[in-house]
Amino acid sequence: MIDTPLSAKLGIRVPIVQAPMAGGPSSQELVAACCAAGALGGFGFAYTQPADMEKQAAWVRERTPSPFVINLFTSPQPGEVEDQRAALDAVAQFYSELGLGTPQPVQPPFAPSLDAQLDAIERIKPRAVTSHLADFPGARVRRFQSLGILVGGAATTIAEAKHLESLGADFVIAQGGEAGGHRGTWLRDPYDAMTGTLALTRLVVKAVKIPVIAAGGIMDGAGVAAVLALGAQAAQMGTAFIPCPESGASPVHKDALLAAKEDDTRITEKFSGKPARGIVNRFMREMADKPQLPFPAQNSVTGKLRAASAKAGTTDCVALWSGQAAPLSRRMPAAELVRTLEQETIAALRAGAALVKE
Amino acid sequence: MIDTPLSAKLGIRVPIVQAPMAGGPSSQELVAACCAAGALGGFGFAYTQPADMEKQAAWVRERTPSPFVINLFTSPQPGEVEDQRAALDAVAQFYSELGLGTPQPVQPPFAPSLDAQLDAIERIKPRAVTSHLADFPGARVRRFQSLGILVGGAATTIAEAKHLESLGADFVIAQGGEAGGHRGTWLRDPYDAMTGTLALTRLVVKAVKIPVIAAGGIMDGAGVAAVLALGAQAAQMGTAFIPCPESGASPVHKDALLAAKEDDTRITEKFSGKPARGIVNRFMREMADKPQLPFPAQNSVTGKLRAASAKAGTTDCVALWSGQAAPLSRRMPAAELVRTLEQETIAALRAGAALVKE
Repeated sequence: MIDTPLSAKLGIRVPIVQAPMAGGPSSQELVAACCAAGALGGFGFAYTQPADMEKQAAWVRERTPSPFVINLFTSPQPGEVEDQRAALDAVAQFYSELGLGTPQPVQPPFAPSLDAQLDAIERIKPRAVTSHLADFPGARVRRFQSLGILVGGAATTIAEAKHLESLGADFVIAQGGEAGGHRGTWLRDPYDAMTGTLALTRLVVKAVKIPVIAAGGIMDGAGVAAVLALGAQAAQMGTAFIPCPESGASPVHKDALLAAKEDDTRITEKFSGKPARGIVNRFMREMADKPQLPFPAQNSVTGKLRAASAKAGTTDCVALWSGQAAPLSRRMPAAELVRTLEQETIAALRAGAALVKE
Repeated sequence: MIDTPLSAKLGIRVPIVQAPMAGGPSSQELVAACCAAGALGGFGFAYTQPADMEKQAAWVRERTPSPFVINLFTSPQPGEVEDQRAALDAVAQFYSELGLGTPQPVQPPFAPSLDAQLDAIERIKPRAVTSHLADFPGARVRRFQSLGILVGGAATTIAEAKHLESLGADFVIAQGGEAGGHRGTWLRDPYDAMTGTLALTRLVVKAVKIPVIAAGGIMDGAGVAAVLALGAQAAQMGTAFIPCPESGASPVHKDALLAAKEDDTRITEKFSGKPARGIVNRFMREMADKPQLPFPAQNSVTGKLRAASAKAGTTDCVALWSGQAAPLSRRMPAAELVRTLEQETIAALRAGAALVKE
C-alpha cells in the first residue's frame, strides 16, 4: 500500500488513477478491473449519453464497491456549422477507401448535452468527477461537493491550476506535455502550454495548496515514484492501460502502442477539432495542412472513419492516442498491471531512500 | 551525501551536474563554486578558444581539487555563407536601435576549431567531457578514455542514446523537452524530438546499459529525487544555476528568470541558427518569420546585439535561455544552492519511502 492524503480521501490503496479515455479505451470492464485492484478507475464519458453513463456506472458497482472517477469534456459546443464543404472534401478520399460513400454535413448536437451529463453525475454520485478542456460551472462544483463527490480538473498551466483552486476544486490534475489524447488547455493557446510533466508537476505543486495528480508519460512504477517525489499525491496513467485486454481500444491501437520503438507521437487537431497527442499515422500526415471543422463537430466527421479503419484492421484513420512514452507499453490484465505498478513504485521509492548515505 | 554508481565514478558528493552553458553563464567562478560544494561543475566551452579553455580550467584547479566536466558543440561548421543580405536586413533595425550601425557579413570561422578544442581537452584532462548537437569522433572517445577522461553526450531520443552507447560512451545525458538552451538533437528533426524529461529519462534508462544523467526542468531537490526514481544516476541543472551571483549570465537574464510566473519559453533558431529554448522576448517575437543564417554563423550575427542589449539593461535582444520551470528560480550563492539541493533531495527521497505502508 502507498498512502498519500489524497489516496486516503479517494479511498484507494495505490495512488494511481486509470485515466478516463473517452471514445472507447476506458470501458466499464477496464474501470471495474482497475477499481477492484485498488487503483481509481476512470470513465471518460465525454461522448456518452446520460442513460449509458448510468448503465456503465451500475455495471461497475455490481462488480466492485471500490470508488471510481468520471471525466467530462466541459468546453462549450458550437451550434450549426456552416461551410462544411472544404472540411468534408478533405476526408472524402478516406471515406471512399473505407467504403463509406461521400461524407455528409454534420448537424448539432455533436456531443451529448453537458447539463444532462452533469445531472447524471449527480445521480451516479461517483467518488470524484473531473473536468477536461475547461472548468465546471461554480454552482455545479458546490452541488457535487454537497453530494460527497470530490471535484477535480485538468490544468496545463499554473494559471489554470490556480483558477481551479479558486473555484473550490478538491484537487488538480497537472497534465504535462508528454500526455496522450486531448490537451486540457483552455486559458492559453494550447501550443504555448506544453510544459513537460516533470516541470509542470513541480510548478503546480508549488503554486496551489490543493493536492495534485500528475499525468503525462508515466508508464511504470518508476514514473509513479518520480511524480510522488515531485510532490504529486497520485499519478494518472492512460496509455499504460490501453493495451490491457479489458480496455475498449481497438486491436490496431493496442498493437501500435506495443510496437512503438521511439516517441512517434505528434499533436493533431484533425480528429476532433482540438489538439490531442497520438502516434502519427496516415490520416495525421495527409490531413496536416487540410481544413477541419471546429471541436467537436470534426469528431462527428471522423467518427465513422475511425470505426471503419479499426474494423478493417488498419491504423490508417484510427486516432492512435498515445503519450510520449509508448515504447514502455506492455500488455497484461489490468489487475496484474495495477499490482505490478504498486510493487514497482514501492521498489523505486525504497531504492531512492537507499541512495542517501551517512 | 547521495550516492549513485555514476556519482562515485565522477567523484562527486551529490549527483548533480551544473550544466555547461556556453556563452557566459557557466563562468569559471560558477564552476569552481559548484565543484567545491560537491556537485560536478561544468564548462560550456562551445565558443571558447583552446588557450582560454586551458586558462579557465587552471583557474578552477587553483581553487579546488574537485572534478569538473567540459562540454563542446560537436556539430560540423559551414564554410563561407553566401547570400547573407536577407538575414542581415532582418536584424538591421535592432543593430540600429542599439547603436551598432549596419550589420556586416560574417566570415568563417564562426566558432573555434573543434579539433583544436578536442586537443585542449586532452591536455586539460577534465574528469569528464560531453558532446552536444552531435557525437565525438570514435577515435577521440577512445583517446579521451585512455587519458582517464569519462565520455558522455546528450541524447534527445532513444536512437541517439543507443548510438552514444555503441560508440563506447561512459554515460548519456537524456535531455528532455523542458530543457533550456540548445536542443541536442542530431539524428532526427529536433521538432520531432521534444519528449518530456520524465518520459525521456525513463525511456533512455530502459534502452541503454550505461548510466543516465537527466536534464530538463529540474530546479530543486524534488526534481533531483524524481529523476533518481526514474533510474537516472544524476541530474543536470542549468537554469537553476543561472541566477547565482557567480554565474556569468547578464543581470537582465537573471532578473528575467527570477520574474517568470509561468512557462513563457519557446524554441527559437534566431539566435544561433539551431533550435534552443528561451524566454520569449522582443527579438524572438519580431524575428519569428524572418530569415537567418545557418548555425553557428547566425550566432556571429547576433553576438554583438546580445551583448549590446545586455549592456543597455534591456532583455530585447538577449538570449534568455531557460528551461520550462523558470518560475522555480531562486537567487543564492552556488555553494548554498548545492547544499540546499542536497538537503531537499534527501528529504524528498525519504518522504517518498515513508509513503509505503504495511
